[in-house]
Formats: sequence, C-alpha cells, structure tokens
Amino acid sequence: MIRISLDLMGGDFGPEVVIPGAAKALERHPGVSFVMFGQQEKCAPILARYPTLRERSVFHHCEIAVAMDEKPSQALRRGRYKSSMWKAIEAVKAKEADVAVSAGNTGALMAMSLFCLRTMANIERPALAGIWPTLKGESIVLDVGATIGADAQQLLDFAVMGGAMARALFEIERPMVGLLNVGVEEVKGQEEVKEAGRLIREAGLDTINYYGFVEGDDLGRGTVDVVVTEGFTGNVALKTAEGTARQIAQYLRSAMSRTLLARLGYLLAKEAFDRLREKMDPRKVNGAVFLGLNGIVIKSHGGTDAEGFAAAIDVGYDMARNGLTQKIENDLKEYHARHSSSAGPEAA
Amino acid sequence: MIRISLDLMGGDFGPEVVIPGAAKALERHPGVSFVMFGQQEKCAPILARYPTLRERSVFHHCEIAVAMDEKPSQALRRGRYKSSMWKAIEAVKAKEADVAVSAGNTGALMAMSLFCLRTMANIERPALAGIWPTLKGESIVLDVGATIGADAQQLLDFAVMGGAMARALFEIERPMVGLLNVGVEEVKGQEEVKEAGRLIREAGLDTINYYGFVEGDDLGRGTVDVVVTEGFTGNVALKTAEGTARQIAQYLRSAMSRTLLARLGYLLAKEAFDRLREKMDPRKVNGAVFLGLNGIVIKSHGGTDAEGFAAAIDVGYDMARNGLTQKIENDLKEYHARHSSSAGPEAA
Repeated sequence: MIRISLDLMGGDFGPEVVIPGAAKALERHPGVSFVMFGQQEKCAPILARYPTLRERSVFHHCEIAVAMDEKPSQALRRGRYKSSMWKAIEAVKAKEADVAVSAGNTGALMAMSLFCLRTMANIERPALAGIWPTLKGESIVLDVGATIGADAQQLLDFAVMGGAMARALFEIERPMVGLLNVGVEEVKGQEEVKEAGRLIREAGLDTINYYGFVEGDDLGRGTVDVVVTEGFTGNVALKTAEGTARQIAQYLRSAMSRTLLARLGYLLAKEAFDRLREKMDPRKVNGAVFLGLNGIVIKSHGGTDAEGFAAAIDVGYDMARNGLTQKIENDLKEYHARHSSSAGPEAA
Repeated sequence: MIRISLDLMGGDFGPEVVIPGAAKALERHPGVSFVMFGQQEKCAPILARYPTLRERSVFHHCEIAVAMDEKPSQALRRGRYKSSMWKAIEAVKAKEADVAVSAGNTGALMAMSLFCLRTMANIERPALAGIWPTLKGESIVLDVGATIGADAQQLLDFAVMGGAMARALFEIERPMVGLLNVGVEEVKGQEEVKEAGRLIREAGLDTINYYGFVEGDDLGRGTVDVVVTEGFTGNVALKTAEGTARQIAQYLRSAMSRTLLARLGYLLAKEAFDRLREKMDPRKVNGAVFLGLNGIVIKSHGGTDAEGFAAAIDVGYDMARNGLTQKIENDLKEYHARHSSSAGPEAA
C-alpha cells in the first residue's frame, strides 16, 4: 500500500484543488492512503465533501502555510518544523509516507526538502526532473530548475538519477540518455557538457545507454528517454516549449473562428480537436520529481486544477510503487563502486 | 540602391536554392543589385534561367566552396581569401556590397565573418540575432548560438545591439529589452544575468527601454521586443521552440486524418489551416543577423528553400536600408561616452 503525504495549502488554490485532486487520484488507485497537512478551518469543510477520501486519510492541522511568493529563506525561517509543506516532507522522512506532493512554491519546497531529507550519499545537489511529452510518448528532462549550473560530475549524477527514474516510470531496462548541447560547429558545446560526455562514456554504466549529445529539437522528437542539462537551460527550455504550445493553440483558435466555413469545419472535426487538446494538455504531464534526496518529493504546478494535481499524485504513486529512491541509490552505488575500482584497479 | 553579396554555394542545396531565392527577393525589391560568388559550372546554367536577376548581378567564379560539415578552423584554412563564403563577406568589407547573405555552415560563416570584418570597437564578441514570431508580431532574440557564455558586460552589449536591430527592423523608437532568466525563487537567476540587469539599469540608456527579466514563455508571448541571453541557452531555446512547433503540427496532422468527419472538417476549414501553416512557417522568419561586426552578415538556414532564402535576403535588405551597422555604432558610442563620463563625473 502506497502512502502519500499532501501539503493541502500549496498552490494558487490550496485545498480547493488539492483535496478534489486527491479524490480523483484515489479513484484511480483505490489502495492508496493519505496523510494530509493543512489549516483545519479551511480544509475540513472541503474534505467533508469527499467521504471516501476522508476515510483513507489522516488529517493533521498546521497553522502555518507557505506563501506562493515567499522567498525560500523566509519560508524556511517561518515554516520550518511547522508549516503544512514542511510537515508533508517530514512525513516522508519519518517513514509515515512514501512520497510527498505539494503545489507550493518551488524554491521553498526545494529548500525544505533539502533541509529535511538531505541529499543522498555522493550527491552534491538535487535536480528537478520533469516529464516531457514527445512524438514517441514521454521523456524525462532534468534539471528543469532546481539549481543553476552544473559541473561534469553533477551532470553525470543527473544522468544516473534520470536513468533510474526512467526505469521506474517507463519500465525500460536501460534507458537512452542524452546530454543537451548546441550543434553549432564553432562552439562545439559547453566545456562541462563535453567533459560530462567523456565521464559518462568512461564510466561504462550498465544502468543506462548513453546516446551522446542532443539538441533542443530532440526534446519534442523524443530522441532519448532522458535529457540531461543544468537547471538554467532546462528551465528556459521547459518554459519555451510551454509558451510555444500556448502560442500555437492561440493561432489555431483564432484561425478556426475566423470564417463561417472554418467554424463549420471545426465543429465537424471537434473530436479530433478534443484529442489534440488532450495531447497538448499540460495538466497531463504535471508533476516534477526532486531527485537525489533521501525520499521522494513531487512538485505540482501551482496554477493547476484538480485534474492536474491528480496527475502529480499519479507520478508520485508510480515513483513510490517502483521504488525510485532505492533504484537511484543502487545505481549510484554501482557507479561509485565501479568508479573507485577503475580508479585503482591494482588495489582490487 | 542596396547591394547584396551572395554565397551561392552555401546551404544544403547551394545555387539551386540561392539563385531562385535571389530572384524572388528581386521581385520584391526591384532596386537591389547582387554580387554573386560560386562555382561557374554549377551556377551559370541556373542563373541563365533568371534573365532579370542576371541583369542585376555581377557573378564571380570561386573554385572553393565551404562544406556544410566542415569545422570552422578547417574551413578557414581551406577557404580563407578564396571560397565563395569568404568572397561574399569580403565584398562587404571592400564596400562593394552593403550586406552578405549565406546559407553556409554557421560556424564557418561566423569564423570567416569575424576574421574578415572584425568586431566593432568595444565589442568583444559578436552575437547571432534571430527573429522570433510572437503572439504580438515578432521579437529579436540574441545570442542564438554565436558563442557559448557571456559575462554581464557582454550581455549589456547584446542589449544595445539588439535594441539597434529592433529599431532598424521594427522601426520602434525605444524598443523594450528583457534579459532571459529563470523564475524559480531559490535560484533567482544566473549571476551574470543579475549583474547585467544592474549594469543596464545604471547605464540609463536612451536607445532602449529596459524591461527587466523575462522567462522562456515570454518569448512566444512577445512580452518584449528584444530578448537577451547567452548563446547556449539561446540556441537551446530556439531549437526547443522549433521542435515543439513541429511536434504540434504532427499531432494536428494525425488528429485531422484519423476519422472521416475530421477529414471533412479539415477540408472545410482548409483556408484556416493554410493560414495557420503560414503563421507557423519557419521560412517566414529565416535570416539571423551577426551583430557586432564591421559589416552586416546574414545567416540563412542551411536546409531552407528559395522562399526561405528570399526571406533571409529580405532581412539583409531591411538591415542595410536602415543602416544597422551605423545604428549599432552610434548606440555603442553613446553608451560608452555616458559610461566613461559617469565613471568619472569630476573629470568632466
């Protein structure tokens, strides 16, 4: 049985979205149970509307809620040990939950997760891994904004962790992993990226298939299962793709409403448009995963609705069910065992 | 009268695309004349098919053509002083042309342009500025891949140069300029970007309106006229947007061909779909500009067709007609005059 802890106060709409989202997720995974943290007076009336969910949940009152615009340092000072966000994460640390899900502010969630759960052995910094819809299905892209910059070793760690997540999420044995780079000949890529490519090749990892460099247009194409990049570029790429999708949707809407014939055509093809809308629905791929911590924390979009929040819970459910943390730990251990033995083969 | 020098051998299709492209551009700008460089035996038969164009052109035979996969250093060694690419750039230096256009390999074009034209005073490195279609029209994004990384001062130079280009291209008096950054609170952005923001504010430039930071999704939204970033992120963002557009076009095609009703709807709304296709046509925004050199060089996509190459010529035409180089030089001069006087106000 998977136990999920929820920060009911996170996101633009707090319990109004989180609780209905949990109810939807429970329909899909009836075996799940919830540990919930939030302000009693706001949450109880909403929870009362979902008797099945209430039956599968333990509710804890927390006075403090982290604000969406609070600075991480401020959120930590004000909300550590007592906010609904902190308590949700702490439940994972205390083994009362297998995964925490919050739609709260990313920086605060990152800071609190790091402070509470700490990074795994040999991991310097966690990464935020997003799920990217592609022409072939889905890929994992990391880091989409946990930290800015990454050296070659950190990029290698991202490759190992992203590979473990792909095995957990897509159930592929040896996921294909690529490093995001630019194709322009003169520049031939960032030094860190080139160095990371060398390190990954030399490491001869059994858990991933190293593809080599990929470019921005390989993201949507689904060239590889896992795309590795540092957090600044990853965040810009993610938001650029989201923005482009919205832009095209806007073009499409305005084209389809311009003439009578176009409107008629739209009506006839409505089912196809609905399918397209579903394909492009950002809520379907909601739920980014903090990788590299001693526990699983899922970040949902702050502005999502119940459907979107349920998708984030789905991701958390899959990660917990497939033992993501254990997979990452094993893969990292294997890499470091090989790495140290290859560094001193005579000692073996 | 604007004179345009053409590297006939550049791009995946060389003169097969460049010459018909020039013919199209000439129809739109009948006052233009061309200086052409390429292999006689390949180019002459094609040029013969366009008598009006031939009349407005001077053709020079060049034995050497830079290959699309040649490394810049190799291209420089083999093609300096004698390749069609070099000769097209050199015509700008010798004031025989106002602008050079090539669909040849970006790295080689960059290296040769830099070597031949040199950077303007006070400019350390040139930037490649692309034109980005937005919901409001078009924006300029730089650097989309000339060099990797940029310090705060270089980002400020990009802002000044991009502003000058926006004034030349969009005929806006004080274009709105933003710095590309990430919105995640914890990270609060790259150090160089934050520092560049401070520098630009302090500089109090008359030639641009500084907006502040923008994020990836502001690109398609058209929040600002000019988006400034370093070449790695800019290149990834550009290719991610192109890839996302192709991905959605593919979804749309497959949705519209799935059922009979959808196909019928598509037929009725065909005009609207054509309009959408035109909106999304990457050929319409072909033509990136190297900024910061003593002369204008336009880079066309290597894989474009005649229509796309004509669009790149259009960009070159606009840049030359509006005196881009002069505008940039003036703006840089103004900035540096202010900057040195503000550094030592007592000396004034």
